[in-house]
Amino acid sequence: MGSQPNDEQLFAIINEIFNDKIPFNRVLGLKVASIRYDRVEVRFDMRDELIGNYMRGSLHGGVISSVLDVTGGLSAFVGSQHRLAGKDLDTKLKKFSRLGTIDLRVDYLRPGLGQWFISTGYTLRTGRRVAVTRIELNNDQQDLIAVGTGSYVVS
Amino acid sequence: MGSQPNDEQLFAIINEIFNDKIPFNRVLGLKVASIRYDRVEVRFDMRDELIGNYMRGSLHGGVISSVLDVTGGLSAFVGSQHRLAGKDLDTKLKKFSRLGTIDLRVDYLRPGLGQWFISTGYTLRTGRRVAVTRIELNNDQQDLIAVGTGSYVVS
Amino acid sequence: MGSQPNDEQLFAIINEIFNDKIPFNRVLGLKVASIRYDRVEVRFDMRDELIGNYMRGSLHGGVISSVLDVTGGLSAFVGSQHRLAGKDLDTKLKKFSRLGTIDLRVDYLRPGLGQWFISTGYTLRTGRRVAVTRIELNNDQQDLIAVGTGSYVVS
Amino acid sequence: MGSQPNDEQLFAIINEIFNDKIPFNRVLGLKVASIRYDRVEVRFDMRDELIGNYMRGSLHGGVISSVLDVTGGLSAFVGSQHRLAGKDLDTKLKKFSRLGTIDLRVDYLRPGLGQWFISTGYTLRTGRRVAVTRIELNNDQQDLIAVGTGSYVVS
Repeated sequence: MGSQPNDEQLFAIINEIFNDKIPFNRVLGLKVASIRYDRVEVRFDMRDELIGNYMRGSLHGGVISSVLDVTGGLSAFVGSQHRLAGKDLDTKLKKFSRLGTIDLRVDYLRPGLGQWFISTGYTLRTGRRVAVTRIELNNDQQDLIAVGTGSYVVS
Repeated sequence: MGSQPNDEQLFAIINEIFNDKIPFNRVLGLKVASIRYDRVEVRFDMRDELIGNYMRGSLHGGVISSVLDVTGGLSAFVGSQHRLAGKDLDTKLKKFSRLGTIDLRVDYLRPGLGQWFISTGYTLRTGRRVAVTRIELNNDQQDLIAVGTGSYVVS
Repeated sequence: MGSQPNDEQLFAIINEIFNDKIPFNRVLGLKVASIRYDRVEVRFDMRDELIGNYMRGSLHGGVISSVLDVTGGLSAFVGSQHRLAGKDLDTKLKKFSRLGTIDLRVDYLRPGLGQWFISTGYTLRTGRRVAVTRIELNNDQQDLIAVGTGSYVVS
Repeated sequence: MGSQPNDEQLFAIINEIFNDKIPFNRVLGLKVASIRYDRVEVRFDMRDELIGNYMRGSLHGGVISSVLDVTGGLSAFVGSQHRLAGKDLDTKLKKFSRLGTIDLRVDYLRPGLGQWFISTGYTLRTGRRVAVTRIELNNDQQDLIAVGTGSYVVS
């Protein structure tokens, strides 16, 4: 799918909102690492307050589900841009503000150990109303820590 | 199922670990509100840093999935105590440290608005190896904000 | 929510379509047992060809997921009728033909043993575009065999 | 992971049980198309009685969830064989009879239209007690009809 004239600007704004304007994303230290129509990446560093199991020092399950959710949402939004071709920036940003998770499944595969983590979201389907995405969380050793599938309202 | 002699002491220790020793639970401000064999409750207050949608002022989806996950885990652990009848406290605590989420589904039903929230976990099945729990999150107006179902390794 | 003048007729037609016009429902022997706005029930009898584990003689997991899916869908449709108040029968039936499952989670709790089974669907949320339902499958002894949660497109 | 001496024989027996001894698999017309340690494929042909939407002529959602469930289960079993290295055939077959689905999520992406369908299962994690698998259903045009994620007890 071809890039739209104003999408670079859109992605820059989304990036800023995602990193700076969403309070709980800041608590988690999430940063957009890359945005492409078919794949987005979100990165964060291990920090003490993200720990769930204090004996192992591994990520809290809620940190994992949180990052999968937002990566899936971002992926659903970006993957749905081809339906907004020709719309102005304001219309597109309004869509972003209305994006909502319908449901999310998280599979916890391995302990969340590592110095940093990267979460990758792919769209499986982008309908007019609902987008379905798949998300994978890897640590800095490329171990697959968790996977998820999420459905999002995009209309 | 009958209460075990040392379970009150166990629940007091679990309570303390849950509230104070798990770093990310502290970030979320989670507190165990009640523990019964068939039902546990976790409570937390709204705070600015838990916000996801800064225009609406509603809870971040990750806060919701986090609290559902830990409430389900606590419920799975407590609901499995009848299988540990007669075991000493150390054995039971070791089980707690080995508790792990296999997978979790979260359904986001309504915006997470409110001054405080309460999450309630019920066990649907407590097998020797796997427990399945259902979790509901309500706000201070008794609106059902989200529901979840989680599978946990309890052996 | 108040009953609509033509809903009894609607439910009679839905009942007939469900039981007789959907080929795979006939293979499973599914019958609508009751329809109310907030709860629907679907019933079926054990038959040899529905068996999955031939040593235990228990229901195939696919029979269970099938009945949960259709019960959830029926529940989503009926629960959304208040949004169609005043519409004519044809409009309502057209909605039924467009109903689609977005996703479904099934939790298998106990072996599917029994002479007959009843599946009950409840709506958790009926939005304009998406309805979320919870489904429970019990056998003739009132054992809870499986539970599910499904999201459906209802627009 | 290296092939075990008696696994070809094991896979031949599993194949026979799967295709011929599980009554509901026969109703669905499921056939094992290939078995490898890291990937299994199950195939079936469209038939009138598998239809759910009689106006479109597409697969019933329950057919889709059924085939995803059994493909995931087969994948979980085969993927766990490295843990049974050196065990005799009877031990391995006993494991097969004890295999159980804990839970399954199904995402319905596109209408189930086609002359035949192939379902592919991959293991994401094979623990001592629990295996997690991912399953994809494609039609004869290589359209992705549905995906699923399932957790299975393998001990």
